[in-house]
Amino acid sequence: MALVVQKYGGSSLSDAERIRRVAERIVETKKAGHDVVVVCSAMGDTTDDLLDLAKQVCPAPPPRELDMLLTAGERISNALVAMAIDSLGARAMSFTGSQAGVITTGTHGNAKIIDVTPGRLRQALDEGLIVLVAGFQGVSQDSKDVTTLGRGGSDTTAVALAAALGADVCEIYSDVDGIFTADPRIVPNARHLDKVTFEEMLEMAAAGAKVLMLRCVEYARRYNVPIHVRSSYSDKPGTVVTGSIEDIPMEDAILTGVAHDRTEARVTVVGIPDVPGYAAKVFRAVADADVNIDMVLQNASKVEDGKTDITFTCPRSAGPAAVEKLRSVQEEIGFTKVLYDDLIGKVSLIGAGMRSHPGVTAKFCEALADAGVNIDLISTSEIRISVLVKDTEVDKAVKAIHDAFGLGGDEEAIVYAGTGR
Amino acid sequence: MALVVQKYGGSSLSDAERIRRVAERIVETKKAGHDVVVVCSAMGDTTDDLLDLAKQVCPAPPPRELDMLLTAGERISNALVAMAIDSLGARAMSFTGSQAGVITTGTHGNAKIIDVTPGRLRQALDEGLIVLVAGFQGVSQDSKDVTTLGRGGSDTTAVALAAALGADVCEIYSDVDGIFTADPRIVPNARHLDKVTFEEMLEMAAAGAKVLMLRCVEYARRYNVPIHVRSSYSDKPGTVVTGSIEDIPMEDAILTGVAHDRTEARVTVVGIPDVPGYAAKVFRAVADADVNIDMVLQNASKVEDGKTDITFTCPRSAGPAAVEKLRSVQEEIGFTKVLYDDLIGKVSLIGAGMRSHPGVTAKFCEALADAGVNIDLISTSEIRISVLVKDTEVDKAVKAIHDAFGLGGDEEAIVYAGTGR
Repeated sequence: MALVVQKYGGSSLSDAERIRRVAERIVETKKAGHDVVVVCSAMGDTTDDLLDLAKQVCPAPPPRELDMLLTAGERISNALVAMAIDSLGARAMSFTGSQAGVITTGTHGNAKIIDVTPGRLRQALDEGLIVLVAGFQGVSQDSKDVTTLGRGGSDTTAVALAAALGADVCEIYSDVDGIFTADPRIVPNARHLDKVTFEEMLEMAAAGAKVLMLRCVEYARRYNVPIHVRSSYSDKPGTVVTGSIEDIPMEDAILTGVAHDRTEARVTVVGIPDVPGYAAKVFRAVADADVNIDMVLQNASKVEDGKTDITFTCPRSAGPAAVEKLRSVQEEIGFTKVLYDDLIGKVSLIGAGMRSHPGVTAKFCEALADAGVNIDLISTSEIRISVLVKDTEVDKAVKAIHDAFGLGGDEEAIVYAGTGR
Repeated sequence: MALVVQKYGGSSLSDAERIRRVAERIVETKKAGHDVVVVCSAMGDTTDDLLDLAKQVCPAPPPRELDMLLTAGERISNALVAMAIDSLGARAMSFTGSQAGVITTGTHGNAKIIDVTPGRLRQALDEGLIVLVAGFQGVSQDSKDVTTLGRGGSDTTAVALAAALGADVCEIYSDVDGIFTADPRIVPNARHLDKVTFEEMLEMAAAGAKVLMLRCVEYARRYNVPIHVRSSYSDKPGTVVTGSIEDIPMEDAILTGVAHDRTEARVTVVGIPDVPGYAAKVFRAVADADVNIDMVLQNASKVEDGKTDITFTCPRSAGPAAVEKLRSVQEEIGFTKVLYDDLIGKVSLIGAGMRSHPGVTAKFCEALADAGVNIDLISTSEIRISVLVKDTEVDKAVKAIHDAFGLGGDEEAIVYAGTGR
């Protein structure tokens, strides 16, 4: 008998029929002898509908009230699932984030979980009840106000509860069968992955894989909570995210897959005085605008004029703010100009195998060259290579790399050694 | 500067446009220099829609989960009104029943308010904020679960908050202009009442007047909170419910109006042994079935056979349960049979004037006789006369009485003395 946390996304709960089906799956798990804690997102488009209503009454809704409004969505879905479970003859009890002890910071709309005190959940479990918790929400430590956790919040709620309750696994149910070596919509022969390490999943998420949010994977890794990504429409095995690349014998290490991201923009600051501290001033300015930076490249100093360029990528949504902020400090820092381009995409290859198999970078670049894709910027980590390309060439690049490293079909996804990295 | 509690019904909040209009009225009150606490019901048909959803997933939803589900409706409307107020440049903060300190019993679906601890509301008011509270909901003292207050719950929330905060007035906004001498749909020349005492309003509500729920008026009377019934669609003066009939000089006492009720059924228990304690057994049985009794009549004992009959009225919805329960104890108590009739209606005349003006009962019965309405049962209180008639004759009876006592038009609604009561 295990303690299982299950999280169901909004599309799995879009109407009464689907809610009943989810309830059946939950009751099956309970009948199999497990303790079950369920986290549900809001039904279908509820959150968007509530946002529309909010915009109708207020162009810029105050964050605290927006949180009060949006959290109603998860209360509704959780209560309905509890009722559906009851109608199947099992006993369930639903809790709000606050009742479940999800304590957060006071940053409305994007609160961070500080602590989880699941006393009431534990008690309900001990009474043999199936426990439901409204995802995406918590209560702020200081003001005791209702907060929301931002994008992917329900996944984070599920992992946080799994960690606090010492669950054996956290099952994330959505409309996909798990993690693939690439987006099947781009690469038809993309291969399903049975198991991925936390580090690889982190890089995949950071590189744009949408199945799991970065935050939720980071949380799961920190508390070592295995995540099982499954489809709520099938009984396929899904993908288990667990373990560390350190535990993988070098010779077994492989390449995980290719991820892509079309949500970033490129900012280039030209002609920065090549003097210690000036680069820092640029990044400070961007940070002050609350913009998160992803890839960074600083050109080798052009000795002749003692000036240098800095290029970085950031979310497209934040691009204009970053540029505006930079222009406001142009005189102070004394750079020449700011260039902005949001017609770009990022393509990444991820895998522990990179550490043990030389020549990956070379093969990677050769593959893109053969496909006629121009590389705009390269950045690498121990187990990831990312390049910036034209957004129109993202699909072509993903196919080329996926193909070059034989990640598709039933072919074993290993890297052929000795190609000289 | 006063402290004003305003309550808005669901029909006043059915869409974004109406929500903005309600927000304007709230901000006007605040700008007039008053502290404002607002209680909103759920938007339009939200509660019914949620109930439908519940029934789709579970034929008999567990009460605790139903409360968790339904309370989402008031969270949504309150947050939206807070946003609309914000968009008008004023500052507002919304609170759930639990956050507002509305402590209740644990009876899900029909909880009673035990205590109100409005610390957070007081603090927000002191900060100059407009305070919004989700109506109809509270938190149970023992289990800390979300509860609902049952029919008219939001009105009760508003009055309870007004009492706890020592508000100067509790304004109840709905789609009617106030209290009338009769239902204008039945009596075209029904007259609007500017002021009604608590006792009179209690009798009106008990007699079927739908504008205010009995519970909310009882609460207002106990804590002496003036209620101002107004329309959210007009600026008409409405009706103020305040004061006691004791404060009305006898000679000024008048008749308030005619109320009717089509929600009751009549139960007659025939042939009860006319022995002390047997009537009690009948009422105990009905009480055990959780049925509330309204009018009661016990026939004079028929000496010849030492048996008596008891007739009472109760809500139609509870009628079948009452009959079933009575039949289950028929042998034990030893009565002859139970008769049931739900094709009845109750018509009542209410007014403090009754105490000072003789002949009201006579005039009342004469009016019905002249109209050819047969009286089935009569019950009276110090300031009320009620009769049971065929449901098909309710309208005719209301018109006849309203007319006989000159309650309509601009005519002064006094009772002509000396008609011998």
